[in-house]
Amino acid sequence: MMKAYDDLLTRYADIRKLGLAGSILMWDQNTYMPPGAVEMRGEQQALIAGIAHERLTSNRMGELIRECSSMKDMSPEQASIVREIERQYRRASAIPERIVKELSGLEPVATQRWVQARKMSDFSIFRDSLEKMLSLKREVAELIGYDDIPYDALLDEYEPYMKSRMVREIFGNLRERLIPIVRSISDAVEPGDESARGDFPIPKQESFFRMILERMGYDFNRGRIDVTAHPFTSGSMDDVRVTLRYDENDIRPGLFGTIHEGGHALYEQGFLKEHYYTPLAEPISLGIHESQSRLWENLIGRSVGFWKAFFPLLQEAFPVMKNRNLEDFHGAINIVRPSPIRVEADEVTYSMHIMVRFEIETELMDGKLDVDDIPQVWNEKYEKYLGLELRNDSEGCLQDIHWAMGAVGYFPTYALGNLYSAQFYDRALESIDGMEESISRGEFSSILGWLRENIHQKGKLHTAEELVEKVTGHPLTEDHFISYLKRKYSSIYGITL
Amino acid sequence: MMKAYDDLLTRYADIRKLGLAGSILMWDQNTYMPPGAVEMRGEQQALIAGIAHERLTSNRMGELIRECSSMKDMSPEQASIVREIERQYRRASAIPERIVKELSGLEPVATQRWVQARKMSDFSIFRDSLEKMLSLKREVAELIGYDDIPYDALLDEYEPYMKSRMVREIFGNLRERLIPIVRSISDAVEPGDESARGDFPIPKQESFFRMILERMGYDFNRGRIDVTAHPFTSGSMDDVRVTLRYDENDIRPGLFGTIHEGGHALYEQGFLKEHYYTPLAEPISLGIHESQSRLWENLIGRSVGFWKAFFPLLQEAFPVMKNRNLEDFHGAINIVRPSPIRVEADEVTYSMHIMVRFEIETELMDGKLDVDDIPQVWNEKYEKYLGLELRNDSEGCLQDIHWAMGAVGYFPTYALGNLYSAQFYDRALESIDGMEESISRGEFSSILGWLRENIHQKGKLHTAEELVEKVTGHPLTEDHFISYLKRKYSSIYGITL
Repeated sequence: MMKAYDDLLTRYADIRKLGLAGSILMWDQNTYMPPGAVEMRGEQQALIAGIAHERLTSNRMGELIRECSSMKDMSPEQASIVREIERQYRRASAIPERIVKELSGLEPVATQRWVQARKMSDFSIFRDSLEKMLSLKREVAELIGYDDIPYDALLDEYEPYMKSRMVREIFGNLRERLIPIVRSISDAVEPGDESARGDFPIPKQESFFRMILERMGYDFNRGRIDVTAHPFTSGSMDDVRVTLRYDENDIRPGLFGTIHEGGHALYEQGFLKEHYYTPLAEPISLGIHESQSRLWENLIGRSVGFWKAFFPLLQEAFPVMKNRNLEDFHGAINIVRPSPIRVEADEVTYSMHIMVRFEIETELMDGKLDVDDIPQVWNEKYEKYLGLELRNDSEGCLQDIHWAMGAVGYFPTYALGNLYSAQFYDRALESIDGMEESISRGEFSSILGWLRENIHQKGKLHTAEELVEKVTGHPLTEDHFISYLKRKYSSIYGITL
Repeated sequence: MMKAYDDLLTRYADIRKLGLAGSILMWDQNTYMPPGAVEMRGEQQALIAGIAHERLTSNRMGELIRECSSMKDMSPEQASIVREIERQYRRASAIPERIVKELSGLEPVATQRWVQARKMSDFSIFRDSLEKMLSLKREVAELIGYDDIPYDALLDEYEPYMKSRMVREIFGNLRERLIPIVRSISDAVEPGDESARGDFPIPKQESFFRMILERMGYDFNRGRIDVTAHPFTSGSMDDVRVTLRYDENDIRPGLFGTIHEGGHALYEQGFLKEHYYTPLAEPISLGIHESQSRLWENLIGRSVGFWKAFFPLLQEAFPVMKNRNLEDFHGAINIVRPSPIRVEADEVTYSMHIMVRFEIETELMDGKLDVDDIPQVWNEKYEKYLGLELRNDSEGCLQDIHWAMGAVGYFPTYALGNLYSAQFYDRALESIDGMEESISRGEFSSILGWLRENIHQKGKLHTAEELVEKVTGHPLTEDHFISYLKRKYSSIYGITL
């Protein structure tokens, strides 16, 4: 029996290695690849992904999984490994090659249409591709199967074991409690943003951000920083790369992009060597991944404590900061204002953007919403939830690339990340003596150590639901996130929340 | 029958795509990869190479090749494609997995030993690994088979269809004619090298070299430049990357590294789109590859004509060049002096370094030379051919990494490249009206067009031997190279050669 298990691990390791090679090729494509190579690269990636898929869905893989699933006396680690490989096998095997090919053929076309549509702010250009994509995703959902609604099967890709029902419930509670907070903040006096603007030379930003990543505990021996239009983190284990963008006239995009991606990267660098190439050296879900980036970016990186340590260094690095003060700067990095674009949203209104998408996606999958009605419904929801009148579809339902890439079910993970992050943070605060004092000194070894031990090093040992229970003592709730927002923004805005 | 042929092409294309992905991963490893990722990368590369090998040597591949080989009415292109795929299949299939694994296990160990041995200048540290490597390579040679001597089977890996007998003959002639040239030059007054030294700021070098590559016809849309310790060119077709190194106090290493790698890159960028992923979009041999780099580096890049165009630009870019003159600079970039290190050798003495290695390698493979005698024999040959008394094995038989990597049979291709380059150049000169006048104006479209049409776009349509005959009208000879050296160095050194 152990022979089957070892064989399974070896085969899985190869599949994972192919994925990691693909991840570096993707990094290259987004950083240094010459533009003319795009077609060749697409062919290489399709081939490597195809080989990995073929291996994952092979008959032998199925046999080994069945053998291993009936193993007696498995350790919890072994059980999780088999469970997670089975999960991937089952999902991948459910989808016939015809659909895989249709999807990968549609993606570049839909993306191209989406780019055009967004540019012209003309939904009709994207409409047909989107309808085709949604119909394929509905087919995928049926093939994978679900207990409740089709959306569950898609959500499960990004947030394994999470159910739409749970998302709907928690989003419902969150919305009720966010609306008055947003309203109160909107009625208050907004801090100025001048103290985060001015002349920030890029080489200086680069070394400042590098210093912050080093302080956070990011290991440059197993990673690096490069520049891209859309920051991302790629790779895993001993090769985890962060990309950034810089705004010469505003420190914020680069700064919080860095800390955000740094949080993602610490997760990927935090697996145990002995687990490499098994599901125990993989992130649980995109929501948990996002909890790491947001914990660092928002709960730590936008806190007064953090800037007690780093504001003097910021002033030292950038002459423009010389006569500015910490309080103004802290206000400037915590401005809350309903705005149409998700990726530019602050942490308070951010989740509202996600709810709009979640509601629209579930209704599209249920067949309750027609593609043609998306723009109108989108705009109505933005008015209702954020009080915004959108001017056009470019700043409305055409703003995100996700649907063009077939990533239906992805959006909720962003908002779940917010909730997870606050719940983890509160627990860390209880567990670690003087945690915020350490942060105020720019020392992060205690919080990083706690994250490593409780989250990173576990990989996929637990499901997200189990992990949250285990680490924080209770199921996921919006309470922590709401308390965090109230605490923080009553102080910054001088209001009662 | 055409079905088998199409199937063969499809399978071969996938193998080639895996190789190209591996080539970019290798580029990454030598440029941007974080040091801690070296183990992971090794595993990815081994896996991808293993998959490619498995596919190349599959039974189905063998069947398809047999079917296609008996096809009637094949076009010359089809015949070459089948011939070249069969050649790769045959070589790869000849070597059992046991030896492939032994070799890939030995390489890192041998390389590590070699690094140590070279550092300590102690051959005994490397001795055992080298003996093991040579014994494996002898086994490989026996498995692949040969008509004359075992070395043929190894040489054929790098210079397909070339025979040791031919190399020995042409090297013999070359040596006889080089020795008096080297002697005469050594007796003459050496030009100074001051006019190529001084302050050459790296960013300025970078843009100067970029300009030269653009002028040569290198397509930056399908390529890029980066920095490495040991310059190389990687990739092919639409993704061909060049790496360089810079010496702040001497323009020569960066300059001629650039032109040399640029020559390699133009070859790889010069295949026809319709041939991509077939052997018709692959270089014939390392010797022909080297002919392209050396034609650009030496015959063009170190000519007076080239500098008529570029010397004024060099003076403009680097203030240190201001009061220097073209003639002195041309002398400084053409200094001939016997020296112990191959990679630092000038074009006149370079081939002597290769002959030493060729003679030693063939005798090692024939069992006529014992590993323990390498250092002594090496030193004797350097004294005999180059008049040098070597001080230690670091600047002697431990200087090259090739044997540690198992690259036995590789060295001759460097010297063959010299000979091919001069023979091609002379033919181009006959075919193109005013070629050298164009070069003197910094215009390379006529020479590049000629190389494209006659060499690059042919890929592996012909063998190297056929190509040389077809393009130049006669077999490979040392005549052109010798005439070129005599012409050039009598003028520079003011002597009769």
